[in-house]
Amino acid sequence: MEKKATKASACGSDICVVSYVDQNKVLSVLQGMKSESVMQRIAETFKVLGDPTRTKIVYALSNAELCVCDLASLLAATRSAISHQLRILRNMRLVKYRKEGKMVFYSLDDGHIWNLFNECLRHIEEEEYDRHDRRTS
Amino acid sequence: MEKKATKASACGSDICVVSYVDQNKVLSVLQGMKSESVMQRIAETFKVLGDPTRTKIVYALSNAELCVCDLASLLAATRSAISHQLRILRNMRLVKYRKEGKMVFYSLDDGHIWNLFNECLRHIEEEEYDRHDRRTS
Repeated sequence: MEKKATKASACGSDICVVSYVDQNKVLSVLQGMKSESVMQRIAETFKVLGDPTRTKIVYALSNAELCVCDLASLLAATRSAISHQLRILRNMRLVKYRKEGKMVFYSLDDGHIWNLFNECLRHIEEEEYDRHDRRTS
Repeated sequence: MEKKATKASACGSDICVVSYVDQNKVLSVLQGMKSESVMQRIAETFKVLGDPTRTKIVYALSNAELCVCDLASLLAATRSAISHQLRILRNMRLVKYRKEGKMVFYSLDDGHIWNLFNECLRHIEEEEYDRHDRRTS
């Protein structure tokens, strides 16, 4: 492993005691990095999902196609508040809608939204399980 | 489909023209909802990932195990700034570290982190492709 020493430092226990940069490894990771605009969009997508009401809307829509009235009833919120959150989710193409007569039904934009949500849920559930396991062992 | 009419409303084109709540569907989704604390943790996890620097750190760590110095060099940031972001990611159990002599190496906490990041990336890439497709057709 080629390492380039820069300077020593007195750091906390969670960072290196000496400062080394593995130039080969850094270059390899750098070459595989996505463009700045893609990284920004990933961050924006996560940020939009990082609101409890929007998280619940996405979870609800992963179970059924619902209208604003259904979601408002489900989350004990006003239709205006739900409509506002749905607009933010739509702008990020996380949800889509279709009209049927006088009704407008919302669903997740594609399967990836549910998958990423599900991966997050599984991570949290495993972590809860580990925590419980540590407490009882 | 059993629907309970509540009241009519003059809404925008993205919400129903009449207000109906499908009580059966709402009840079914409600029964499948996760607890408030789990939903909060999902939202918090997404929120933590919704910062461009943290997004890049997670992406970098999905490619290789790296130390703070490597990450600082890769993202052209100070080690102190990277260390701060790593601490936030660690508190949410998104990354972990191991010590090897004087070095401290970071990696993703589990495979779910990369999966959820990858699902987000695939959603964005497909969306970019669709956008490009619409422009050229």
